[in-house]
Amino acid sequence: MKLSVKLIDIGTREVLLNIGDARNIGVLAGDRVQILNQKTGVSTAAFVDTTTSLIPEGVVGIYRITNEKLGVEDGISVEVRIAERPVSLQYIRKKMDGIRLTKEETYEIVKDVVNEDLTPAELTAYITACYINSMDMDEVEHLTRAMVDTGERLTFHTHPIVDKHSIGGVPGNKISLLVVPIIAASGLKIPKTSSRAITGAGGTADLMEVLAPVEFSAAEVQQMTLKVGGAIVWGGATNIAPADDYIIIQEYPFRIDARGQMLASVMAKKFAVGADLVVIDIPIGEHAKVPNVQEGRKLAREFIDIGERLNMRVECALTYGDSPVGRSIGPNLEVSEALRILEGGDEPGSLLQKSIAIAGIALEMSGKAAHGMGSKLALDIIKSGDALKKFKEIIAIQGGDPTVKADDIVPGKYEFVVNAPADGYVIEMNNQSLISLARSAGAPHDHGAGILLHAKKGSRVEKGEPIFTIYAERSWRLQSAVEDGRRLMPVLVEGMLLDRVPHESKWE
Amino acid sequence: MKLSVKLIDIGTREVLLNIGDARNIGVLAGDRVQILNQKTGVSTAAFVDTTTSLIPEGVVGIYRITNEKLGVEDGISVEVRIAERPVSLQYIRKKMDGIRLTKEETYEIVKDVVNEDLTPAELTAYITACYINSMDMDEVEHLTRAMVDTGERLTFHTHPIVDKHSIGGVPGNKISLLVVPIIAASGLKIPKTSSRAITGAGGTADLMEVLAPVEFSAAEVQQMTLKVGGAIVWGGATNIAPADDYIIIQEYPFRIDARGQMLASVMAKKFAVGADLVVIDIPIGEHAKVPNVQEGRKLAREFIDIGERLNMRVECALTYGDSPVGRSIGPNLEVSEALRILEGGDEPGSLLQKSIAIAGIALEMSGKAAHGMGSKLALDIIKSGDALKKFKEIIAIQGGDPTVKADDIVPGKYEFVVNAPADGYVIEMNNQSLISLARSAGAPHDHGAGILLHAKKGSRVEKGEPIFTIYAERSWRLQSAVEDGRRLMPVLVEGMLLDRVPHESKWE
Repeated sequence: MKLSVKLIDIGTREVLLNIGDARNIGVLAGDRVQILNQKTGVSTAAFVDTTTSLIPEGVVGIYRITNEKLGVEDGISVEVRIAERPVSLQYIRKKMDGIRLTKEETYEIVKDVVNEDLTPAELTAYITACYINSMDMDEVEHLTRAMVDTGERLTFHTHPIVDKHSIGGVPGNKISLLVVPIIAASGLKIPKTSSRAITGAGGTADLMEVLAPVEFSAAEVQQMTLKVGGAIVWGGATNIAPADDYIIIQEYPFRIDARGQMLASVMAKKFAVGADLVVIDIPIGEHAKVPNVQEGRKLAREFIDIGERLNMRVECALTYGDSPVGRSIGPNLEVSEALRILEGGDEPGSLLQKSIAIAGIALEMSGKAAHGMGSKLALDIIKSGDALKKFKEIIAIQGGDPTVKADDIVPGKYEFVVNAPADGYVIEMNNQSLISLARSAGAPHDHGAGILLHAKKGSRVEKGEPIFTIYAERSWRLQSAVEDGRRLMPVLVEGMLLDRVPHESKWE
Repeated sequence: MKLSVKLIDIGTREVLLNIGDARNIGVLAGDRVQILNQKTGVSTAAFVDTTTSLIPEGVVGIYRITNEKLGVEDGISVEVRIAERPVSLQYIRKKMDGIRLTKEETYEIVKDVVNEDLTPAELTAYITACYINSMDMDEVEHLTRAMVDTGERLTFHTHPIVDKHSIGGVPGNKISLLVVPIIAASGLKIPKTSSRAITGAGGTADLMEVLAPVEFSAAEVQQMTLKVGGAIVWGGATNIAPADDYIIIQEYPFRIDARGQMLASVMAKKFAVGADLVVIDIPIGEHAKVPNVQEGRKLAREFIDIGERLNMRVECALTYGDSPVGRSIGPNLEVSEALRILEGGDEPGSLLQKSIAIAGIALEMSGKAAHGMGSKLALDIIKSGDALKKFKEIIAIQGGDPTVKADDIVPGKYEFVVNAPADGYVIEMNNQSLISLARSAGAPHDHGAGILLHAKKGSRVEKGEPIFTIYAERSWRLQSAVEDGRRLMPVLVEGMLLDRVPHESKWE
């Protein structure tokens, strides 16, 4: 059916049809149509919304994302037809039925994901089927390769290229802000793509954005890495292994992180940036993603296996994940903490130790440091000021202000101090509750929101002594975080627990 | 955040926010917000679309389905907040993890489905998890009861109430148009809710709509049944076990019909209309839903088990499902064929035999006929003209024309006759291909579209003799069905198969 175009500024991959035209084409709301721009020959599929009044018969409303593919203007005529059912739906059904998918079938699914030819519901069925029926290592390799092949890649002519990844689940894990400068300062190249927080209080991309823009094309990341040795960008803007972003969004409502998909997502990004040497940080802890060392070792072997299949050398570090890394959670607080360490202005703590340990592994893998000497070299690079200098080069090349100092970056002006309710030792810090609190306070969107820990797990505190401060940029956000804190009790001091009666107890 | 309402005529459960307001509220496209009409106290959740231009900051666009719940007008002020994550998502995750759900958890999920508080993707995750991890009979019972409790019910003060259901998969299965009048003519009550075709060429509701309106409230169905003993309506309009419709839509892309959900859907509708005696028609055949008698018996025992749990007596009929019932596929053709049998004007065939067999079981269960005498009584009711008289009463009470005759209902004016390519026996009729062909021709939307079979499986045909005719209301639809027919070869005559070279062979 020929229809006249009306552009509509709604940010989805849909078209709006008059209900009469929809019936004539033979589609209902939610069905797929194919739209053909006959002048250019470009055609795309989109999902149908219907209206009885907004659009008359004879006109099709083209939403913004649909038009990014189609490129039409108001008033021109397009052909709208019922769309074929994607063949990938049969493969998803196959996985639902517990049958292994071939390389070609997996590629077809991933291609349709990236082209947005599957609905969120259809993609969710694939994710759920892979989660329940799991993927074997061949399938994970196929998924990894399909994710790489459906996105852009970096190509470097010097080697080795280094990369690192933390599988997450631990708040305050800002180590990339230290590891990337250390590695780049050592003369190695590290083009680091990172994520924004979805369920967390700040992904590495959210943190770096405090200091400089983080949205670059793959080609720009390659150029910046060639010039200064490293970059810290948001992976979502690069079109590197873009399938991952679609999958993560659909996993979000269920808080799942299916093993096979997680392996593929991580390794696809490393492979696509051309990494030769990869360090994976696997935090272990009751409230982290991996509960114990046995599970951590198993996961590590799987990362190494996929690495071998793709000719990447992978080493994994099982790290302590039972409480936050460093003392801060939330963009500004974390960036300030990281900068202060590079400036040499902070006492050594878990953040410094973890950062030089991870950087050290990469330095040993590359031969820059002898076996067992990596973390010492990493520490020397910090102490010499080379890491700070390199970080400023990275900030500058990404368009930020290289004269920035730790003290320039301040938290939100609204704050609430939580004091110890009794004398004793800090016996528990719940990662998930701390993250919830920081998010209630506005993190990661409000850069100034977050939590600063004054005591850490195992510290001795006296009654009335501050144990942490909540910061926010907006007063109602602070209130809401304080209320959440009363409910969640993210930090427990010995002796507190048995006295607690949640509906009546006062909290401070 | 307080925003001013602008109503938007788009038929989805969404709101449109300016991207600035969305950021301030802390939501992205696809997230949930809660909208509160402070005057009435009514509040509802909706999903977020974003725009940079259509809606300025300070205004919220309320889509049609959202406003069906909210009931606001242009210009009034509403409170829009980020919505809590429904607790049912945790239960869906639990089912994904292979853990049985309790009665309360299942109810919570079904309630959220019916209230449209879950996205299609979230519902799909539930369906996929139940499909892969399957449900035990306790879970099926809980799902059945939850489906009943989240919809309307009929209450009759006389008993027994009869119902029937065919699990589908066989084209041309118009037997309800005969069974309902027979049962009602015998003095029993049969309030039959039926479906529209989703993947088929015509559901019972699509067929009945040729003769009379089929959209009624539950109360109207009850009144009509009290007055004339029966009704044939579209279940989707009644709000009886409405969860089923949501589930079926999400199963559609994958062509699945998960056993547990199918059992629950069928039995919930029977229980909700107050049925005491239920006959389930289970067609068995290579191209039907149930491939063999063993599987059919297993399914039958499950229907009977759920029936016992809900105090309904269930009997199942395993029927021949390897080729179409009767000679016609598509609304007008099927209605005409059914009416002709009631008028006594057609030679006995599979349609009459199957109809009196199914009706006969119900007549025996109710005590109207002695054991073994049910189908004879059913045939007598047809031969006496009582069934036709009753059908006309049902047509009249639903608002149709009771003077209608089989010959009044004609197929579409475009037709294409397919002739036997060789002498021989009809060795195969592929149900799925016949349905595809009828749908290509326009069925069920175009009532005149469909297929009339001149030969049936096992018949002897001579070369050049017609084997079936395709009818359509529109010429391009006929063309498309003819092309599909060349490709699908739905009817095979002995000897045809070995000669066939699909890309070159002529088909007629």
